[in-house]
Amino acid sequence: MNIGILGLGLIGGSLGLDLRSQGHHVFGVSQRTSTCQQALDLGIVDDASVDLKQLAAAEVIFICTPLSLIVPKIVQLITYLSPDTVLTDVGSVKTPIVEAINPLWRNFVGGHPMAGTAESGINAAQRNLFVGNPYVLTPTQATPSSATMVVEKIVLKLGATIYHCRPEEHDRAVSWISHLPVMVSASLIAACMSETKPEVLELAQKLASSGFRDTSRVGGGNPELGVMMARYNRPALLASLQQYRHNLDDLIALIDQENWEGLESSFNSTQQARPNFMDES
Amino acid sequence: MNIGILGLGLIGGSLGLDLRSQGHHVFGVSQRTSTCQQALDLGIVDDASVDLKQLAAAEVIFICTPLSLIVPKIVQLITYLSPDTVLTDVGSVKTPIVEAINPLWRNFVGGHPMAGTAESGINAAQRNLFVGNPYVLTPTQATPSSATMVVEKIVLKLGATIYHCRPEEHDRAVSWISHLPVMVSASLIAACMSETKPEVLELAQKLASSGFRDTSRVGGGNPELGVMMARYNRPALLASLQQYRHNLDDLIALIDQENWEGLESSFNSTQQARPNFMDES
Repeated sequence: MNIGILGLGLIGGSLGLDLRSQGHHVFGVSQRTSTCQQALDLGIVDDASVDLKQLAAAEVIFICTPLSLIVPKIVQLITYLSPDTVLTDVGSVKTPIVEAINPLWRNFVGGHPMAGTAESGINAAQRNLFVGNPYVLTPTQATPSSATMVVEKIVLKLGATIYHCRPEEHDRAVSWISHLPVMVSASLIAACMSETKPEVLELAQKLASSGFRDTSRVGGGNPELGVMMARYNRPALLASLQQYRHNLDDLIALIDQENWEGLESSFNSTQQARPNFMDES
Repeated sequence: MNIGILGLGLIGGSLGLDLRSQGHHVFGVSQRTSTCQQALDLGIVDDASVDLKQLAAAEVIFICTPLSLIVPKIVQLITYLSPDTVLTDVGSVKTPIVEAINPLWRNFVGGHPMAGTAESGINAAQRNLFVGNPYVLTPTQATPSSATMVVEKIVLKLGATIYHCRPEEHDRAVSWISHLPVMVSASLIAACMSETKPEVLELAQKLASSGFRDTSRVGGGNPELGVMMARYNRPALLASLQQYRHNLDDLIALIDQENWEGLESSFNSTQQARPNFMDES
């Protein structure tokens, strides 16, 4: 099959490696000539170009650009495509993208592979990145089932586990388990930084260990990524944040009122609930 | 030296292993006969008993019971001791303990080894648990320097890094980096649990990965331990929680107002600050 990849970073690059190893012919497009050369050198693509036109030969195209570029790039891209070309993206928020693309391109299937590494960029690309990981597809009632089936077939071969849902359900789910944790964790770091006594701040820094390290990890991550989540998933994230604030206030009230039984019962609930969010693997 | 250990769990047991390997004679006391037998079998103590009187022979005694038992056990214990016996505890909150014990026993030095494992109990005891980890001592103006020096000498030999501070400073520092993370993390789990649409909750559970796993870890831990932190460090923890709530509200406001530059600058600060809380090792 002729498959196009627009955007050759960690996800686009890893896709290319897997798809080529399965015998597909992969066309890659990147904004930078140097990335095109790297993609060829690393065996990620068969052909590479900075020109979107190159993708006209593809039957399916994966859009793997940063979130903010998905819609503008598709708008440019579709002027070169035959109408039966299937488009799918890998953006971590789905509603605004699906809403923007659905009226423009019939054969579009929103997607979100939940795979990543600490590193990003084409040099972090690796084979089998998607194996055993969730891959969400958000076809709507307007999406031809033939288009969905084409994408499904490719994704299954990547070894991923497919989940189907509406774009709004996806965005709400990731607001809970991916975007809210970033905000909660960043606020923790900000609160600790605000300690006004230098000797206490220094002591806190010396004494911080695995509890602080784990809880603060995602809040100390890439600022652009954090902004992107908030920007594109704003309504769902704000709803999650308001709910979180209620739960925090409940907990503060229990401590303030010295309601230790209530607090223990609350901790019992969270202790019991957490394993439901954990992969068995 | 004759050293006593009251409470033979992870910390008491690990202390026993290290102290015996240095040639000290270790007397252990536990409430349970079965734990005494285990302590002997595991080579943690030279003598074990359920009787506090046994500790009369010790020159230094480490109180390694759960936080709530430290003060009541010391009150019972000191009736058997000669006044020059040095007492030290390993409780994770210092102000209430130091305030209660200082008037009762002159040769008392508050202590807090910042060491732990995922497991607890005597079977989790291990050699070298304290090596390279912080060990806070909180002698006050009333504490004889001879008593502090005796404890310091033992702690240094454990390979720990000693920090001195006032009990209130310790409690405020750990409220930031140890107790606040538990509350923040538990509230995250509680918020996610509150999702009212079953299909979204189920999807969130399926999609949760390392970001959620790390941020929720300490909030899904031992409920009794969480209550203990809140109960004994209540004033410092409430202050930290109120500050945290302000930082959270600031972040919500930035997102609500779509102030993406402000949000990015906030994430830049947290990204820059986090390494200051990380051990170089």
